Amino acid sequence: MSKLVRVNMSTKEVQIQEVPEQYAKLGGRALTSQFILDEVEPTCHPLGPQNKLVFAPGMLSGTSAPSSGRLSVGGKSPLTGTIKESNAGGITAQKLANAGIKALIIEGKPQDKGFSVLKITPDSVEILAGDNVAGKGTYETTAILRKEHGAKAAVVSIGPAGEMLMANAGIANSDIEGNSSRYAGRGGLGAVLGSKGIKAIVVDAPGSFNVPLHNPEAFKAAAQKFSQILLSHPVCGTGLPQFGTNVLMNIISEAGALPTRNFSRGRFEQANEIGGEKLAQVAAERGGLATHACHPGCVMRCSNAYPLPDGKVCSPIEYESAWALGAHCEIDSLDVIGTLNYICNDVGLDTIEAGGTLGILMEAGVIPWGDGAAAIKALEEVGQGTPLGRIIGQGAVFTAQAFGVTKVGAVKGQHMPAYDPRSAKGIGVTYATSTMGADHTAGYAIATNILKSGGYVDPLNKEGQVELSRNLQIATAAVDSSGLCLFVAFALLDNPEGLPAVADMLNAQYGLELSVNDILGIGSNVLKVERTFNQRAGFTKEHDRLPEFFYKENLPPHNVAFDISGDELDQTLNF
Amino acid sequence: MSKLVRVNMSTKEVQIQEVPEQYAKLGGRALTSQFILDEVEPTCHPLGPQNKLVFAPGMLSGTSAPSSGRLSVGGKSPLTGTIKESNAGGITAQKLANAGIKALIIEGKPQDKGFSVLKITPDSVEILAGDNVAGKGTYETTAILRKEHGAKAAVVSIGPAGEMLMANAGIANSDIEGNSSRYAGRGGLGAVLGSKGIKAIVVDAPGSFNVPLHNPEAFKAAAQKFSQILLSHPVCGTGLPQFGTNVLMNIISEAGALPTRNFSRGRFEQANEIGGEKLAQVAAERGGLATHACHPGCVMRCSNAYPLPDGKVCSPIEYESAWALGAHCEIDSLDVIGTLNYICNDVGLDTIEAGGTLGILMEAGVIPWGDGAAAIKALEEVGQGTPLGRIIGQGAVFTAQAFGVTKVGAVKGQHMPAYDPRSAKGIGVTYATSTMGADHTAGYAIATNILKSGGYVDPLNKEGQVELSRNLQIATAAVDSSGLCLFVAFALLDNPEGLPAVADMLNAQYGLELSVNDILGIGSNVLKVERTFNQRAGFTKEHDRLPEFFYKENLPPHNVAFDISGDELDQTLNF
Repeated sequence: MSKLVRVNMSTKEVQIQEVPEQYAKLGGRALTSQFILDEVEPTCHPLGPQNKLVFAPGMLSGTSAPSSGRLSVGGKSPLTGTIKESNAGGITAQKLANAGIKALIIEGKPQDKGFSVLKITPDSVEILAGDNVAGKGTYETTAILRKEHGAKAAVVSIGPAGEMLMANAGIANSDIEGNSSRYAGRGGLGAVLGSKGIKAIVVDAPGSFNVPLHNPEAFKAAAQKFSQILLSHPVCGTGLPQFGTNVLMNIISEAGALPTRNFSRGRFEQANEIGGEKLAQVAAERGGLATHACHPGCVMRCSNAYPLPDGKVCSPIEYESAWALGAHCEIDSLDVIGTLNYICNDVGLDTIEAGGTLGILMEAGVIPWGDGAAAIKALEEVGQGTPLGRIIGQGAVFTAQAFGVTKVGAVKGQHMPAYDPRSAKGIGVTYATSTMGADHTAGYAIATNILKSGGYVDPLNKEGQVELSRNLQIATAAVDSSGLCLFVAFALLDNPEGLPAVADMLNAQYGLELSVNDILGIGSNVLKVERTFNQRAGFTKEHDRLPEFFYKENLPPHNVAFDISGDELDQTLNF
Repeated sequence: MSKLVRVNMSTKEVQIQEVPEQYAKLGGRALTSQFILDEVEPTCHPLGPQNKLVFAPGMLSGTSAPSSGRLSVGGKSPLTGTIKESNAGGITAQKLANAGIKALIIEGKPQDKGFSVLKITPDSVEILAGDNVAGKGTYETTAILRKEHGAKAAVVSIGPAGEMLMANAGIANSDIEGNSSRYAGRGGLGAVLGSKGIKAIVVDAPGSFNVPLHNPEAFKAAAQKFSQILLSHPVCGTGLPQFGTNVLMNIISEAGALPTRNFSRGRFEQANEIGGEKLAQVAAERGGLATHACHPGCVMRCSNAYPLPDGKVCSPIEYESAWALGAHCEIDSLDVIGTLNYICNDVGLDTIEAGGTLGILMEAGVIPWGDGAAAIKALEEVGQGTPLGRIIGQGAVFTAQAFGVTKVGAVKGQHMPAYDPRSAKGIGVTYATSTMGADHTAGYAIATNILKSGGYVDPLNKEGQVELSRNLQIATAAVDSSGLCLFVAFALLDNPEGLPAVADMLNAQYGLELSVNDILGIGSNVLKVERTFNQRAGFTKEHDRLPEFFYKENLPPHNVAFDISGDELDQTLNF
């Protein structure tokens, strides 16, 4: 039976509740965002007792639906002040779902300073002492807890960044092999978990795919069909499994949309040195993995495992991480990028924001452009909690303010990912209008602007970008609710049988009769819920804008500025 | 003839313009706020080329009206993101007015990194090299420039904090003796001047009181009458001249409204050690001054000069500074407070925000409560530009975020001054609703809540506080436009002949026929202008709130919380 688990860290009480009717058909982002709107005072301090942190598996998570193991983590973000849903792979969602848990809600705030570990099984929820893991990195924390609680358990953890309540602290989830590298990274929700005095959550359940199904036969047929749809798509079935997301490095640089040296130009001359092809080659040479699944049942297997010169293994190096820690800083070494990425994973930082921040340190002259050793040293200070580390751990906007830098590519306090909004204007609309700050995953217009999935909209021309971003943001909110990996969207955009197959799976699981339009309706409702929260938190259309330099400074090589007006941006989510 | 001076730091061009009709009758805050609304894009980066900094003498400044030498400095604040008018004493306003300048507008942003000095006389405006003063403290900068340009010139300057674009950087103005201690402190406008590449402004004019008058005889009569009104009032004529503003320390502590140890209680057991009576005694013993005028023609003479043990002189130690650097941090030594105050003056920091920030460092455990030596060492790091100094220089909210402190008494990013809003609820309404963040001077409800000027409204009861704050905010905006020191308000509140005398002076100066209602109309219009700017910058009623702990935690000794609801606060400036 599906249930809600509430853990109050003020009183240390655990409540296990039936799922109220209004939440019964929701999952993932639809569920976390609705909970936050219903239960969190929008103007509260994100790190105070009034904020809540909600973990929810997607609607399909815990079934055999391919690539359906995504976890949604929701709360009010200490980085942006907006509502936040941060979406992660790893095995947490499947274990929660198989433990019969629809959502885990963490509320209140302890009076004491120590850290606890939450232990969850299908039959019990316990708050355990966390003294043996407090202060440790996520790799060691995860290893200790897997030793204590069994290697099949999912381990959710924060690093020192989350313990120190840094606004760029993420939440790590273990993968199949127990690496703590699948991040609910963006928006600082690791600091929210830290503010609740929770260092880690262990979720143990016997299976990964045993969630009850209303009609198992129909489900199996739909899941098989959906699997075939994914495997037959050139991105989902070939591109991602071969080189992972970092295959984009050369493509985006070629398109002139790769932000280089803090958004100074759109091409990085050394893109090839840090791209997916090189990564796959070096990983193979060193006995790593060019392809890897972050949770059981993923058919796209876009992850990788990159052995570092010191013997550690960074898994994965994603495209956006390689950009932030690479091209953005004019760093052209995969070994340096992998080392920085490993530090982020261990200390508990979002890689995009961390790389964005290192670029700001370079813009400020605190460390030299392209200096990998200096970047590593600076990033290591985060875990040490030095004053410089305290600055870096708060993200790019904060660091820019500390050092008097006015050129920072962020919206609502969150740094942009790996696509310049001037030469990929659709993603610029998404950055500006997303309910949670600059976020490529909120409406991945690169698919249509550059990869030509779902048609083609010229990335350099403002025409059609608002509509493109709107449709993608709606579809994304639905996918983020389903528990499916967002990368299925390439197949959904190109194959008219994709969304019906998703509807068939949901209907067979829950005994529903959802149409494709109903699914998109879930997406648009999620956006309405999130915008309502943000408005009540004090956000207005004036916050749905890009930083002024994108409108004033042209980006080489196409020498274009961002030219979509405020009035036009305001039409994006005006429904 | 009155003129506008525009200095464009992008092009290094100077324009001297006639005053457009719509600005001819404005001065001080009315003029700076109208300029900012008319000419500054509200969503611009406060430290970017689109922000402007406006210096305007008050309407009466440069005449012989008593205590009329106040300067308004306006811009978009890097601390709050709102419009800002920061109001200062010293001789700048009188010198600008006597040079025939209605407003000095600094715009643009230089490409190069160096600093300039602006030299203004009645006949010329020059941009000079500032290499000989760049990097220096305000005391030395002012001394060098007075030596170069004459001891009668006013010197406006920023310290290293402003050069480093810190959000708590203020703008120093020299007083009669050439001390750089009269601050346009609040809101970080020193960083705006720094962003324009201007280290200092020298204003030289032959006289202090020679502004042309429409009817000199009528003016003289009105000014004499106003002077008598001030001198016969117990606060303006006796209290302030005797002990200065710091006479409040014991009074506010006794009232249970003195925020102690970061708003943990409302009385400081050592208040007497840091109050005005002790200050006057020690100053006299050491050959300092218990009373002092910050500009020629001031009859209230509330300033002081406190000799420090090392031979330096801190002038003045204001009540709010002594609170922030004292009771807020549980520091009970005037010598420590004076030393911290001196560092603030020299490095170029607002004392209220700096003291607020030191209290946050103590709350975080970075330095111990009450440890003066540790506080001095930490504050000295600001001028050195260390990472910790970079944090401190950005103010209390920033420092709280860096160190994971959620209890910070600030509104719209600006730290509260020396009155707890729970036991002086009228000032709480002002903090919440002021157009420029937590600011006691925006509507000094302490006058009526505690000092019983203008009647009495029980400070512990919510009744009547909204109306009190509204009326005071309107009157204050008018006083801030007149160039009169806000302290004249005590007399205006109690003596029905006060405002008519102000009207008589303005009418005699400008050939107008303003009524008392017209003057209050200037005030309410200023607030409308400022709220319009803020709304366009993205501020909503959700920002007109106190931090949540004031509603949840009771303050000893009266054990009261702040209980004025959002709907009630929203009525304050709803006109």
